[in-house]
Amino acid sequence: MNVINTVHDVRTLVNKWRKEGYTIGFVPTMGYLHEGHAALMRRARAENDKVVVSIFVNPAQFGENEDLDAYPRNLDGDKSLCDSIGIDAIFAPDATEMYHDPKAFVDIIDLSKTLCGVTRPIHFKGVCTVVSKLFNIVQPNNAYFGQKDAQQLAIIRKMVEDLNFPVTIIGVPIVREEDGLAKSSRNTYLSPSERKAATILYKSIQVGQNTIVPGSSADSIINAMTDVINTEPLAHIDYVSIVDAVTMQPVDTIDRPVLIALAVYIGHTRLIDNFSYELHQ
Amino acid sequence: MNVINTVHDVRTLVNKWRKEGYTIGFVPTMGYLHEGHAALMRRARAENDKVVVSIFVNPAQFGENEDLDAYPRNLDGDKSLCDSIGIDAIFAPDATEMYHDPKAFVDIIDLSKTLCGVTRPIHFKGVCTVVSKLFNIVQPNNAYFGQKDAQQLAIIRKMVEDLNFPVTIIGVPIVREEDGLAKSSRNTYLSPSERKAATILYKSIQVGQNTIVPGSSADSIINAMTDVINTEPLAHIDYVSIVDAVTMQPVDTIDRPVLIALAVYIGHTRLIDNFSYELHQ
Repeated sequence: MNVINTVHDVRTLVNKWRKEGYTIGFVPTMGYLHEGHAALMRRARAENDKVVVSIFVNPAQFGENEDLDAYPRNLDGDKSLCDSIGIDAIFAPDATEMYHDPKAFVDIIDLSKTLCGVTRPIHFKGVCTVVSKLFNIVQPNNAYFGQKDAQQLAIIRKMVEDLNFPVTIIGVPIVREEDGLAKSSRNTYLSPSERKAATILYKSIQVGQNTIVPGSSADSIINAMTDVINTEPLAHIDYVSIVDAVTMQPVDTIDRPVLIALAVYIGHTRLIDNFSYELHQ
Repeated sequence: MNVINTVHDVRTLVNKWRKEGYTIGFVPTMGYLHEGHAALMRRARAENDKVVVSIFVNPAQFGENEDLDAYPRNLDGDKSLCDSIGIDAIFAPDATEMYHDPKAFVDIIDLSKTLCGVTRPIHFKGVCTVVSKLFNIVQPNNAYFGQKDAQQLAIIRKMVEDLNFPVTIIGVPIVREEDGLAKSSRNTYLSPSERKAATILYKSIQVGQNTIVPGSSADSIINAMTDVINTEPLAHIDYVSIVDAVTMQPVDTIDRPVLIALAVYIGHTRLIDNFSYELHQ
């Protein structure tokens, strides 16, 4: 497996692959890889001749008061996991390789303003820009994103459509711990008592899944889920929202495909989770 | 020569070419092609196996009070010129093919705020977005832009660098009429008396070229050029500016590579022209 640190070297490698007629799968990550990432990587491995994983903690998607410096890193562990899955190359640039006095950027309106966009106003601009850069560097046929970051996935899909990136976007289901907590690099921030409290997100999701039917009022579902979370003293709700699955705009009634998404602080750690609902379910 | 109207059909064609190992040159235009475009096309023809010319009057780069509806069009003439130069394909989509409820966009700070950006605040956002789309659709090795639109060229170069587009940008010198007027589709708006008056832009450029030396104050050059333009009653200056050739920010002294650019209304028609100056000249 190649571990590559420069744009130039990735280009050289993928250009060679493309000339040889290989398809390229791509999994962009911020490292500290867990089973959620592994699911993306295995799917990419199964569907492409060559697979590139990027590991880059992107400063541009962290706000000033967010956890950029604290974000967990484990390059050796990441390499082992990638190796075990048969990844062909890791692209692990540093920030100076990716950004030289940047002036150009990619952003998206409307979809970026709801859900996580309310408290993270520059986050999706940073995501759109770095994903555009990575697509242009790796030039993959297929790129894999987790459904846990459902708003990010919807935004990337719309960005790819609007800007005509020649990449197919594949969303991969959430991977959960045995007690239902969605796998996340940020789970490592949790103390043992917080870790137990964090299961409240999935309990709330389950209540939502058991309550929702076509024609439900969004508020009735949100209230039922909120009530569950409020039983946990360590939990503090950022949002529980129901939005159109494509536009990410709030809906009043479950009359189309929707995303039910929540963000909850457990102590100082902000966790997200979600489920999708389509009317034919 | 192929004339193609859909993104899908361009993709199919260029993917076939890429698989066959051909290099692709690309000339994005708004049509109504003249000798300035022909220079871009001939250069692309000489340097690539296959050449695509796009003809698309991009609504997103016109402000509300600008000349979108009046912008001249002549697809039959454009086809003849492309055919005579041996262009392989024209991509001529309509606006609905290019934009479906667009939310994502590409923009650039700083470089887009000076010169034409002062009076055309959304122009370069529209340019960056459509050029990104066209690059993603055509996936060229080389793309050709006229030096007449010098700020656009600097912005595209920086955008390509910042977003890592796998495209080499080639700037092609201004083509002028016999009396020095820079070729432009907008010259067709000029009445016979305005057409004569329009030569004042190049006369001003020539005075600037003859006056400038390393260490000159920018104001002294700007004043000399302004005085020339003000001798023409039909001319009304939008700007005469000297900016850093890369950053597009104003300079006080000619102590680095600079762009000397002007925009002048002749009657209701806004014309632009420029020259570059490097210290080793």
